[in-house]
Amino acid sequence: MADFEGILPAIITPMGEDGRLNEAAFREVMEYNIQAGVHGFWIAGGTGESVLLDDEENMRIAEAAADQNQGRVNNIMHVGAATTERAAKLAEHAAKMGNEAICCVPPFFYRQSDDAIVEHYRVVGEAADLPLFVYNLPQSTGVEITPELMQKIQDRVPQLKGLKHSAITFANVRAFAHMGLDCLIGNSMLMLPALTLGATGCVDGPPNYAPELWVDIWNAYQDGDWDRAEAAQDRASDATLLAREHGLHPTAKFILSERLGIDCGSPRPPGLPLTAAQQADVLARMSQIGIGKVAVPQGDD
Amino acid sequence: MADFEGILPAIITPMGEDGRLNEAAFREVMEYNIQAGVHGFWIAGGTGESVLLDDEENMRIAEAAADQNQGRVNNIMHVGAATTERAAKLAEHAAKMGNEAICCVPPFFYRQSDDAIVEHYRVVGEAADLPLFVYNLPQSTGVEITPELMQKIQDRVPQLKGLKHSAITFANVRAFAHMGLDCLIGNSMLMLPALTLGATGCVDGPPNYAPELWVDIWNAYQDGDWDRAEAAQDRASDATLLAREHGLHPTAKFILSERLGIDCGSPRPPGLPLTAAQQADVLARMSQIGIGKVAVPQGDD
Amino acid sequence: MADFEGILPAIITPMGEDGRLNEAAFREVMEYNIQAGVHGFWIAGGTGESVLLDDEENMRIAEAAADQNQGRVNNIMHVGAATTERAAKLAEHAAKMGNEAICCVPPFFYRQSDDAIVEHYRVVGEAADLPLFVYNLPQSTGVEITPELMQKIQDRVPQLKGLKHSAITFANVRAFAHMGLDCLIGNSMLMLPALTLGATGCVDGPPNYAPELWVDIWNAYQDGDWDRAEAAQDRASDATLLAREHGLHPTAKFILSERLGIDCGSPRPPGLPLTAAQQADVLARMSQIGIGKVAVPQGDD
Amino acid sequence: MADFEGILPAIITPMGEDGRLNEAAFREVMEYNIQAGVHGFWIAGGTGESVLLDDEENMRIAEAAADQNQGRVNNIMHVGAATTERAAKLAEHAAKMGNEAICCVPPFFYRQSDDAIVEHYRVVGEAADLPLFVYNLPQSTGVEITPELMQKIQDRVPQLKGLKHSAITFANVRAFAHMGLDCLIGNSMLMLPALTLGATGCVDGPPNYAPELWVDIWNAYQDGDWDRAEAAQDRASDATLLAREHGLHPTAKFILSERLGIDCGSPRPPGLPLTAAQQADVLARMSQIGIGKVAVPQGDD
Repeated sequence: MADFEGILPAIITPMGEDGRLNEAAFREVMEYNIQAGVHGFWIAGGTGESVLLDDEENMRIAEAAADQNQGRVNNIMHVGAATTERAAKLAEHAAKMGNEAICCVPPFFYRQSDDAIVEHYRVVGEAADLPLFVYNLPQSTGVEITPELMQKIQDRVPQLKGLKHSAITFANVRAFAHMGLDCLIGNSMLMLPALTLGATGCVDGPPNYAPELWVDIWNAYQDGDWDRAEAAQDRASDATLLAREHGLHPTAKFILSERLGIDCGSPRPPGLPLTAAQQADVLARMSQIGIGKVAVPQGDD
Repeated sequence: MADFEGILPAIITPMGEDGRLNEAAFREVMEYNIQAGVHGFWIAGGTGESVLLDDEENMRIAEAAADQNQGRVNNIMHVGAATTERAAKLAEHAAKMGNEAICCVPPFFYRQSDDAIVEHYRVVGEAADLPLFVYNLPQSTGVEITPELMQKIQDRVPQLKGLKHSAITFANVRAFAHMGLDCLIGNSMLMLPALTLGATGCVDGPPNYAPELWVDIWNAYQDGDWDRAEAAQDRASDATLLAREHGLHPTAKFILSERLGIDCGSPRPPGLPLTAAQQADVLARMSQIGIGKVAVPQGDD
Repeated sequence: MADFEGILPAIITPMGEDGRLNEAAFREVMEYNIQAGVHGFWIAGGTGESVLLDDEENMRIAEAAADQNQGRVNNIMHVGAATTERAAKLAEHAAKMGNEAICCVPPFFYRQSDDAIVEHYRVVGEAADLPLFVYNLPQSTGVEITPELMQKIQDRVPQLKGLKHSAITFANVRAFAHMGLDCLIGNSMLMLPALTLGATGCVDGPPNYAPELWVDIWNAYQDGDWDRAEAAQDRASDATLLAREHGLHPTAKFILSERLGIDCGSPRPPGLPLTAAQQADVLARMSQIGIGKVAVPQGDD
Repeated sequence: MADFEGILPAIITPMGEDGRLNEAAFREVMEYNIQAGVHGFWIAGGTGESVLLDDEENMRIAEAAADQNQGRVNNIMHVGAATTERAAKLAEHAAKMGNEAICCVPPFFYRQSDDAIVEHYRVVGEAADLPLFVYNLPQSTGVEITPELMQKIQDRVPQLKGLKHSAITFANVRAFAHMGLDCLIGNSMLMLPALTLGATGCVDGPPNYAPELWVDIWNAYQDGDWDRAEAAQDRASDATLLAREHGLHPTAKFILSERLGIDCGSPRPPGLPLTAAQQADVLARMSQIGIGKVAVPQGDD
């Protein structure tokens, strides 16, 4: 059994009317997901508006996430930043706050050499000394972590534990699994297919707003009930398509606001909120998919 | 149950010392695969050196394939060509010879408009009036058949039955299945994952030289035995990797020559045969995978 | 001075009502261009519907082109084909008919190894033993001839003389010129820029239907009159945009039919002719650009 | 005549042994370039390690640049940041310090809608109310500013003045020039070709370490001396290739350290410095190109 497996939603970063982190809402979303049976979180990553946050916000989130979790599930805290120094500082802090693991995008904006990418991960991994997940997201970073490049990281970074694989190269799931890595598929429409290739779980934004759909897939897979697993994946994929069409950040925030009855705010600009027409479409399709209001959870306190 | 499902190897076109079609060897390879339990063939397609064949060869293959098959499995004959006229002529002939279906790449070399692509398929489909499969192979044709473009084809071409999906966009399998198409996955490393999304089977070159490995996946999936299905897919994928590393045409011809004891010849130039070092590597790995010599089948005659 | 320089229009292949080569119209188009001052032709290439022609048509064109030219300008005959054998046969024939040079796309549809590409050119070059031009057209062939790959060709193919560079990598013009190659830019909107980097001329479809516009650029450049050269390029580029918007084959055939008063026919299917609305737009813009009817030339016979 | 034209080197951000901005060295590099005849600067942009700088550094640079310049040339200060709020704050500050213009990358990391991109530029443009340049750098930002998208910006952002065009789509220079924009070509190997299409100048990193080479091109072009212009471009391109092979940031800092006798430091990690072997190669080729030590300029104070 893998150490990091199951459903690890990529959690949103709720924001208040002032456009700053709404920590209370963050804790509610987290608690709702835990109660729904998720196995961990991918925090302040792509869905969490990662590079739009400043370092202080990232650190406040790391603290709140660990405190709310109290070790119940696996928190994987994102610490990627444009410079190695900033990423290492965030990594050290994430560990100190008590999170279970860290994750990190490779250097972005400037295409760095393989040597520079490996060294970046070595310094960041050492700073936290926690299990480290690579965030393979070439559509944002401009660099794909191929199995060959991952091998170089594995050779030099003892903390390397796994990756979120969000590249189009789906077949690489098998290669990463054969390297002994916990491979978390980054496309929630492909969770079941990925499990058959050796992936240990799924990290993506849509499970954050409808965790029960992906928990169903996971449980059916564990039970060996394949008809149920396939049907669950098909239903969950409809929920993913919602975010694909209207944009992940505004759609996720809107759906969670509706379901939990908590205002999770808008994407930070340049991100735009949903238009009224988009909101109406999302509401109609939420109804079709059957993801409606839920009782607000009360946490463990 | 789909009409076209299971393992449909993309069959090689064996050639003699003169570099021309070796029909006897073609029949032997076909028979060997039928005995191994395959459910059909993808004939004179990508693996069969398609656009390197002249029209007369394509027609001889269409005749031999139907005659050898005698309706036991589903022959899907490739009729793609640079001009609509040639493709339609081949389509009409494939039907006349008694094959079960046809397949066709979209217009290649020149990027045509969507309207032109649809019209091409309409004329070709009408010429054969058999179930028609689109061959979605953008790495060769320069055009991807997206679900949106496929919808336009479906609206105008009554013979449309399904597709071989060989594009990198794996998640589109679900979209094609939701359109009611028989979606045959074109990457044999992804057969099991594709089945979980609604694909009806697999078409690729490697199953042609080791059909038993993919038949195992299919049978385990039908039995609902998922541990066995995953293990079978993992083993089969090792056999696929062989062709990925050394080139599909020369590797497939070399392995079949070894396994059947029949000289299947070399790729047609500009294709190159395996070097001696490549041959040694392939032999060593065939042994590791456990795909060795087989008794030459005697056909049904 | 380069051996192959100036304006070498990529000539269309006019077709009759039966959809077959209209040789008389081909000769007229050629003669019209020669009278307009072009320095050669790129024949039966991309603009000439290359891979849509059968080998017999290619050979008839090679014969007609040499006969009509009578050595007045540089005929570069395209001999690219899917197999090395066919390309070599066409190359030998093009030379025998008396053309000045040949050109050839690299192997297409299947991505071949560098070794296979070089060997393809070696065999084709030897078959004609004429100056050989590589046709660098990755959007159609799937392979870019980089300066590194070109170096491998130059090392093994004594007939290599130059290339038509139609890849997006415009800056490679300098690298090819530094290798001593006659680099003919394949984008007629970039002729003047390319000349400043060492290109020796331009090959593209639009100069075929408005040769005078590119002859103006060339003459101004030769005269060192840069204001005139820039203005001429700007005007010519408007004529190129016409074909970009409505499709090269149908636009080129329509404009030449209008200008010469000769029916040059439609693109071979799957290519589609212009719609009536497209024809009206083309006519209006021809008028704006100032490319109207011309006297039909009478050739040298 | 364009308002922003000529050679505007993308200036490096020199760093001290502590890895922080070395303002004294920054002023020296700037002064050296002004003395060499450049017409302005692109400051804290791609070459200046843009997104690796924190906002305080960006503001210190904006202040030092304006103070050192004293209005002699055109300072275009880069204010791009991950959030609209931060970019607007930097824009306002750059204006307050007395710079002549600002430039800004579009939103990066997350692919935003066209509407979001336009709104981002509207807010940033308004904050500075200076001439605004779009930084078209899809290899870093993941979004190409096509002429169509630029038109939407032009429709909504009154401050829009021009762009640095660093995308591979070289032919778009003509389209941007036809829109009335000051198009500064972002590839210093293509300055002369771009001028013939209507570009008004060049912004790139290599002119920063060898400004005299590009000033030569500009002067020859102004004089209408095309042989000299082509020869100057060819020589300058050799200097560009140095940075292409070994990495722009470390190469630019190393060459300027050598030429000016001032330690400009290393790239900020994850960037890596040149290896000893790379340094030796750069030194040898600097000698071949003829770019050696220069007298340290003394500024205007």
